[in-house]
Amino acid sequence: MTTVAIVGAGLIGRSWAVVFARAGMTVRLWDPDDTVRAGLTDAIRAMLAAGDISSDAIRNVSVHDTLADAVRGVDYVQENGPERLEDKQALFAELDRLVPDDAVLASSSSALVPSRFSEGLAGRARMLVAHPVNPPHVVPIVELCPSPDTTPEAMDRTEALMRTVGQVPTRMTREIDGFVLNRLQAVLLAEAFSLVDQGIVSVKGLDDTIRHGLARRWAFLGPLATIYLNAPSGVGDYINRYGAMLAGLADDCTQGAAFTPAAGAKIAEAFPPPDHVPSLSTWRDGELAALDRYLRSRDAASTKGL
Amino acid sequence: MTTVAIVGAGLIGRSWAVVFARAGMTVRLWDPDDTVRAGLTDAIRAMLAAGDISSDAIRNVSVHDTLADAVRGVDYVQENGPERLEDKQALFAELDRLVPDDAVLASSSSALVPSRFSEGLAGRARMLVAHPVNPPHVVPIVELCPSPDTTPEAMDRTEALMRTVGQVPTRMTREIDGFVLNRLQAVLLAEAFSLVDQGIVSVKGLDDTIRHGLARRWAFLGPLATIYLNAPSGVGDYINRYGAMLAGLADDCTQGAAFTPAAGAKIAEAFPPPDHVPSLSTWRDGELAALDRYLRSRDAASTKGL
Repeated sequence: MTTVAIVGAGLIGRSWAVVFARAGMTVRLWDPDDTVRAGLTDAIRAMLAAGDISSDAIRNVSVHDTLADAVRGVDYVQENGPERLEDKQALFAELDRLVPDDAVLASSSSALVPSRFSEGLAGRARMLVAHPVNPPHVVPIVELCPSPDTTPEAMDRTEALMRTVGQVPTRMTREIDGFVLNRLQAVLLAEAFSLVDQGIVSVKGLDDTIRHGLARRWAFLGPLATIYLNAPSGVGDYINRYGAMLAGLADDCTQGAAFTPAAGAKIAEAFPPPDHVPSLSTWRDGELAALDRYLRSRDAASTKGL
Repeated sequence: MTTVAIVGAGLIGRSWAVVFARAGMTVRLWDPDDTVRAGLTDAIRAMLAAGDISSDAIRNVSVHDTLADAVRGVDYVQENGPERLEDKQALFAELDRLVPDDAVLASSSSALVPSRFSEGLAGRARMLVAHPVNPPHVVPIVELCPSPDTTPEAMDRTEALMRTVGQVPTRMTREIDGFVLNRLQAVLLAEAFSLVDQGIVSVKGLDDTIRHGLARRWAFLGPLATIYLNAPSGVGDYINRYGAMLAGLADDCTQGAAFTPAAGAKIAEAFPPPDHVPSLSTWRDGELAALDRYLRSRDAASTKGL
């Protein structure tokens, strides 16, 4: 039986609790905010119900008043604190003191590579980033990023744990800002901002192009398997046919300068007012859960060697 | 009753025939290759069967021995010839002579903006690009790109026609190389090639990051609606929080130089040998069809103002 501590129980921490609890693991939760802690069991119970997950999973979950109590005897810590460097450094220093020596300490950070908060700590070899997409209980990817000090064993154990609970870990070999996911998102968004700002396509038209176009393949193949199947003789053939065109288009993009306030304002006004975000996010999470069930029901690309 | 001519009946032309025929339109097909023409009706019948589409749709389809015969009395032409400029120019000159004056002439071209083949032709005002993702009968996006000479009326009629047959047209306001879709694909692929070439992530890991991560949202929201829902107060809030980070990541990307032979070789060797492409493409098209049915069965983002 694996025991996991969830440190920081905002939206991401709660979703992680669901991931581990539904897989039968023991989940020990802590958050610095008394009000958050008081509502946690009910909040997780509601998430289980919304996700058609057996309510029995709540028996695997306990909420603790102190960090020291929450991490007692755990095998793995998933940290979800604020993305402020000083806070993260202090929290990992404290975790390193409190958590059993043989446990792995992983951060959900999307903004900080692991050496930024682990450097100089005695237990830096067991520290890494395990970056999810929110909410992880319905979006399976987890990026595993080591610092130069992280041992392969800490990476191996985290990868195995994530596979056991049904997530899809992507293992990186070294640190890079943005990890993989946000680097890919950043370049696509830059070009999207630029095209909308130039008035070439509407916000809705831009979204439709991905939603009803490229994402139809990427949702089950990924972008590289997509190009493998987009030329009669595979990837080499694809690059011979389209490589020069793609290179020209990539060279023509605006990069970071595309993220102007004017482009942002144009995009913002195409969407409902911000007070619609909470209810629409709830709807989105329901759709993510349904899409996850659908995709798991299909014959996956992985079974085809893709 | 709308009558459509399909000019060039390779994989894309046949798929277009299914799009229009299943919507009850009259479809007149022509291809310069005798062998292609001889097998066309059977090929389309097989596509209808594979797609669970009523075999009655084949009654709407006729195959013609000459281009002149195929375009007689049509309202719309969807051209799918080779992507060679001289061929496309010659074909559109011929179409302009043969096709009734009030019909729209659209090319499926992914590589040529419409002015390249329409310039100087009497009927250039009715010519445009309607670029699909292959195969259009299971991937609904169609990019509509005007030349400087294309009338709004030709764009309006094409947009209305595409909506009538259940496609999702994205209307561009002017020509740009790669249109929208391939520009977005090019920047993402460039960063993907770079990350794989640097050894930061495996080919499988890269594909997983999109497939089990970003594409889970993009398949029903698009990338801009995704960021609208990724900060508590919408797009402006998102840019305040993450804009500088995204700009830094976009500035750090390799652009066109990423498409090296070495990166291509590394990606190619992660996939099955090229002789697997035909059977895997058939499997992919079945998955695209199933995903299209699934997504059409859901409460679409569009109904939420997204």
